[in-house]
This record gives sequence, structure tokens and C-alpha cells, in this order.
Amino acid sequence: MFVYADNAATTRVSRTALDAMMPFLTEQYGNPSSLYGLGRNAAEAIDRARKTVADCLHANPREIIFTSGGSEADNQALRSAALIGARKGKRHLISTQFEHHAILHTLKKLEQEGFEVTLLAPHSDGIIYAEDVEKALREDTCLVSVMFANNEIGTVQPVKEIGALCRERGILFHTDAVQAAGHMPIDVEDMQIDMLSLSGHKFHAPKGVGALYVRKGIYLESLIEGGGQERGKRAGTENVAGIAALAAALKESCLHMEEDAKKTAAMRDRLIEGLSRIPHSCINGSLAHHVPGTVNLCFEGVDGVALLMLLDREGICASSGSACNSGSADPSHVLLSIGVPYEVAHGSLRLSVGEYNTMEEIDYLLEVIPRAVAAVRDMSPVWAELLSGKRRHLI
Amino acid sequence: MFVYADNAATTRVSRTALDAMMPFLTEQYGNPSSLYGLGRNAAEAIDRARKTVADCLHANPREIIFTSGGSEADNQALRSAALIGARKGKRHLISTQFEHHAILHTLKKLEQEGFEVTLLAPHSDGIIYAEDVEKALREDTCLVSVMFANNEIGTVQPVKEIGALCRERGILFHTDAVQAAGHMPIDVEDMQIDMLSLSGHKFHAPKGVGALYVRKGIYLESLIEGGGQERGKRAGTENVAGIAALAAALKESCLHMEEDAKKTAAMRDRLIEGLSRIPHSCINGSLAHHVPGTVNLCFEGVDGVALLMLLDREGICASSGSACNSGSADPSHVLLSIGVPYEVAHGSLRLSVGEYNTMEEIDYLLEVIPRAVAAVRDMSPVWAELLSGKRRHLI
Repeated sequence: MFVYADNAATTRVSRTALDAMMPFLTEQYGNPSSLYGLGRNAAEAIDRARKTVADCLHANPREIIFTSGGSEADNQALRSAALIGARKGKRHLISTQFEHHAILHTLKKLEQEGFEVTLLAPHSDGIIYAEDVEKALREDTCLVSVMFANNEIGTVQPVKEIGALCRERGILFHTDAVQAAGHMPIDVEDMQIDMLSLSGHKFHAPKGVGALYVRKGIYLESLIEGGGQERGKRAGTENVAGIAALAAALKESCLHMEEDAKKTAAMRDRLIEGLSRIPHSCINGSLAHHVPGTVNLCFEGVDGVALLMLLDREGICASSGSACNSGSADPSHVLLSIGVPYEVAHGSLRLSVGEYNTMEEIDYLLEVIPRAVAAVRDMSPVWAELLSGKRRHLI
Repeated sequence: MFVYADNAATTRVSRTALDAMMPFLTEQYGNPSSLYGLGRNAAEAIDRARKTVADCLHANPREIIFTSGGSEADNQALRSAALIGARKGKRHLISTQFEHHAILHTLKKLEQEGFEVTLLAPHSDGIIYAEDVEKALREDTCLVSVMFANNEIGTVQPVKEIGALCRERGILFHTDAVQAAGHMPIDVEDMQIDMLSLSGHKFHAPKGVGALYVRKGIYLESLIEGGGQERGKRAGTENVAGIAALAAALKESCLHMEEDAKKTAAMRDRLIEGLSRIPHSCINGSLAHHVPGTVNLCFEGVDGVALLMLLDREGICASSGSACNSGSADPSHVLLSIGVPYEVAHGSLRLSVGEYNTMEEIDYLLEVIPRAVAAVRDMSPVWAELLSGKRRHLI
């Protein structure tokens, strides 16, 4: 059996998204900047896509720009906010320790350029409370960037509360919604979000296309200079096929959100029920505020990479954390940030299911994973020490 | 009849490119950063693509990074070179007045950040001579960026000579080869090019993917921070389908380059022969050093946009200059830079044919365009003044 349980890393392109792309990969190959019919068709497709994305977020089409993905959107949002702040002499940025590296590494660079950054630690439940943000605010704070849902543990942050307290004080609020868009309701108006990043390939559009919402009236700095595309805010010939696919996939996801979430959560809950029976295991992050499809566990005495290898041989695609960081031997910065001990964090497993998965697949996961955990432990000197009492159990 | 004669703006996705994409838009949807088989397949596809692109340019695979397009590649190359220069106290950049806006606007920004920029004026033949570059070199010059082939008039620059004189002096040499890649032989080793940008959609790959060649040992600064993709030089989940398509299309273009160029040049030459019979017209830029498919003409007393509209109604896709600037009412900065008078530059027409065009289509262009030029002139007060002798002919 083949089970793809890594939908937080990327998703399969949907039929709907592929159908939306195909005209632009065949007959409708015009450059959207060209004046003739073939070009106008492409430009109109982008306009329609912009309207669709705006509708899904309760935004205005003029507040959406298309990018090459979530990382670019995150980079552009942060750099723009920093520039706005710097012009007013405000050089303090607030974010969190468990953001995606697109945020953390951009902040690191801004720090080198003279900005001050406060990174809030999430609580052990994987949540940043609005009070934490409030306490960190300073006179010179120009931006708060808190992710909508964490990519590794799936916890959803109190975006609306954070939005409200930022808006009250006139501080920009950005959220990296790469894991939430298409999976959870987002209303930028109601949630008082100023900037929001999303990525197509997390909701069945292809890789290489994303979007950035920027509330009307907020200055946006180009990351890529050149032609006047995206109203001068993002140069480069538009990825027309990708943009059309992103919009179609987002619309479809939003349309079926409730039923998909119900189905997905039922699968995840069965997974949790089965896997938490494995001794010396734990679930990372509270399930009270959570995206429907993701579960992150740690197994003591297990090397996460060895476990993934074994699962791969049984046809199971899963990850130990973020795909973007899978080359690294260090344990996840996300797990460390919520207080998971270093040794335990090494034995993490993220399973992320979606509406394309089935209960039969979940049963297969529940059959294989406990066996694989046991097999890895059998080979583990750490586990031997735990068994013999030479080492103390942490979970 | 429908004739697409704007291949310099964008090209139709080839069957080969589409075939190369399809696996990654269907079954092979893994994230290249994932450790399991599905992810490794995607990573291997990128490796293969990187090798293919490197082979086409006579580079090493480690010298290629994939970007979202030519503009991003241009931005990253210039910013990296500026940073390298600044670290050595060298803050002078040399480029040309008729570069693409991805270059010109990035240079403008660098100027605002304290760099000094010299923009060389091309000669009336549309060429920057190596001597011009040489004369502009200073002790503190850190970069020379001269495009390989101009996007509006198609003139090819003496890249090899410029490369040699830069290498001799240890000055970085970048070339925007967006119009040349896939259409002309490029050998970064022989031509002593340090950095080179290209864009997939100019040679039958889809929009939204490009590449940057950076010679081994040259520091490259990320434009987009985040995950460790592209060896840490370009974050964001890779556009796997687009990358595979770019490589396949470039390989195909390079394989058939000679025959395509011969076919394309024959069509262009027939166009030139026919259209230069139109009174008070001229060809912009020397044809001695030229990409095979592009011809740029000016017709006195003609409004370029009006001409394009008429042609559009006859099924002909053409442009007045760069697609990336088609929203602008100003005449082309390229034509002005080679000394075309302002009034004349307003009446420009760029036709760019490729291997998908046919001689029948050329005959159709030769039938329609003279008629369209006459029709636009009939409505033109400027033309009336020229006819009556109230205004002096400039061409």
C-alpha cells in the first residue's frame, strides 16, 4: 500500500487545479502584458484569479499580489513592514520562535541591518497567547508577525485577538497562513490582518506560486524590480498557469472546507487514538486549537530519520518536521520552542492527512507505524539504556 | 489567419516542455526536500534539470540555481555583485541604457543605496562596444552588466570581448541572456561570463521559471530567505514541474538551434525585405549582430499602439517594444537610447518570429502590415502634416 501522509509538506495537484492550468500551458500562451487578444486573455485570467483569491480571504482584489510562493510572500511582507517602520524610526519587530524559516531567516537578516527582533516562545501547548504579544509591544514596535497555524505541530494561533490588539495600536500585523489557507476559514477583515502569506502547493495547486494579501493603503516594497507587473509591486512575467491553478484550488478548498475538515479530523483522531497507545510516546501541541489534518508525535528512544526510512520502505510518506529543513540533523526548532527535550525531539514524526486520504490508509498507518517504532527501538542504544534503567524516561 | 509574431514577449509551451512537466503535476508530486521516495524523485528531477541547463551553457551544475524567472535572476545577480563590491569598498556599477527594466530599476535602487551607476549609451547600431565598457571602467568598478541580446531590437552585444576585459581586471561580468538563451550559442567558459540570467518562457518553457548561472567561487546573496533549497541561495519549495520543463525546453532549443535559427532568419529576412518597402520606415539596430527572429521597425506618422490594435483585429500578435512595458504611453527607452527621435520612436513595431511560424504566415504579415500602416497614417494628423510639408520628414 502507498500512503501519502505528508500533506503539510506539499499536496497532490488537484484535477481542478490542473484543468485551470492547461489552457495557459497550451493555446492561451499570451504574455499578460501584451495588448492583443491573446495577451488580454491571460491578463483577464489573472484578474479573475485575483478576485477569487480575494473572495476566499474576504479581501479586495487590489489587496492581492501573486508571488512565486509562500517564502517570497513572507520575505516581501517583512521587508515592507520593516521599511515602513524604519521611516518612522520604529525598528522593533515581534515574532515567534516557532515560525517557518522564511520568517526567522528574514528577521535574522533584518537584525543584521539594525532592527531589533523579539521572538516570543510559544507555551508548551504550542500556542502564542495574545497577552504574550501585548507584553512584548514597545513604543517602537512596527510589526507583529505570528503564523496562523504552525507547520510542524498544527496548532492554530489566536490570530483574531492578536489582530485586534495590533490594530488598536496602529501596529502592522502579518500572518504566515501557509498551513491554514484552504484548510481553515480566513477573514482578513474580521481578523484585522494587515498582511497574509499563502502558498498554492499546500492546497492542491502546483509548486512555485503563492500570494500575499496586503491591506489597502499599506506600502508594499518590491522584492523583485523590473516591469510593472502586479501594479509595480512584483516584477516578472506572471506565472499565468500557476496563478489560475492557485485560485481554482483555493476556491475548491474553501467550498469543501467544512466537509474536508470533518473527514480529515476524523482520520487524524483515529491516528491519534491508535498511536498514543505506543508506550513512551507523546503528542506535541494542544489539539484544542489545531488544523484538521496534522498530528505530531514523539517516541522516546527513536531516531526520527531512521523511522522515516523504515516507513518509506513500507510505502508511507511522512516527515519528522518541516520538509524545508529535512536535510538538517538538528531536531526541530519548533519542538524545542515548546519545551520538548532535545533527546525526545529527535524522535518526532509528523503525519499530515488530507481529503485525498482514506480510512483504509489510516488503518495501514496504524498497522505499520507501531511495528516500525518497535523496530527502530530494537536497534537503539538509547532505548536499551531506557529499558535497563541506565537512563531515565522523559515521557 | 492567426499569426503569433511576438516570440520575444513569450513563447508557446512546447510539447516537450509540457511532457516534462506532466509527471510533476500528477503522480510525482513530492516535495524535493522530503526524504522518502516521492520526494527523492522530485529532487532527482531537479538535479537532472540542473545538469541539463549547465550542459547547455557549458557550466557546472553547481553553478546553476533556479529562480521564478529572468527578473528575479537579474535582481539577485546585481544585488549579489553590489554586495561583493561594497565589502571591498567598490561601489561603481556599469551597465547600459537599453537594458531590461529588471536591470535598470534594480540599478536605480542600488543608486539610492549609495552605489554609483554608469549607464553606457549604445551606438546607433544598437551595439555597446567593448571599448565603451573599457573607457568607463574605474578603480572602484565592481560589476559590468551588459545584456546578451536586446529584447526590443535584437542586437547582440560583444559579450566575449566584454567578458575578457572584465576577467583581466577581476571585475564581475553579468549578462542578461533572457533573449539569447535557447536561440544563440552560449558558452560561459569561453565567453568569460561570471553571472548569466535566463527565463524559461522565452524558449517554450512555461512562465514563472528561470535560472541564474553564477561562476564557482562567486558569492551569491539570497533574495528570498527561508529553507535551504538551492543550496541556501534561493529559498522556497521548488517549482519542480517548471524546472523540469525549462531544462527540457532549453535542451531541445539547443539541439535544434542551428536549423531553427536558419529557418527563423529566413522568415525575418523576408519580413525585412517586404516591410522596408513601406515609405518613411526604418529598421532599428544593426542586423549584422542580431538574434535570428526579431525585427524592429519605425514608421513615421504612425502611432504604434493604434497599429497594434489594427493588427490584432487581423489576427496578428505583435508589439511596439517590450511586453513588460506595454502599459506605458512613453516611447521605448531602447529606441531613444540608440538615437531614434521621440516622434519616430512612437511609431515602432517589433515582430519576433520563431520556429513555430511559417512562410505562409510571413506572407500574411506582408499583406496586412503595409495596409495597416497606411490605414493608421490616413487617420494621423502628423502624417497629414508630413504630406503637406508642414512638418519635416525625419526618416
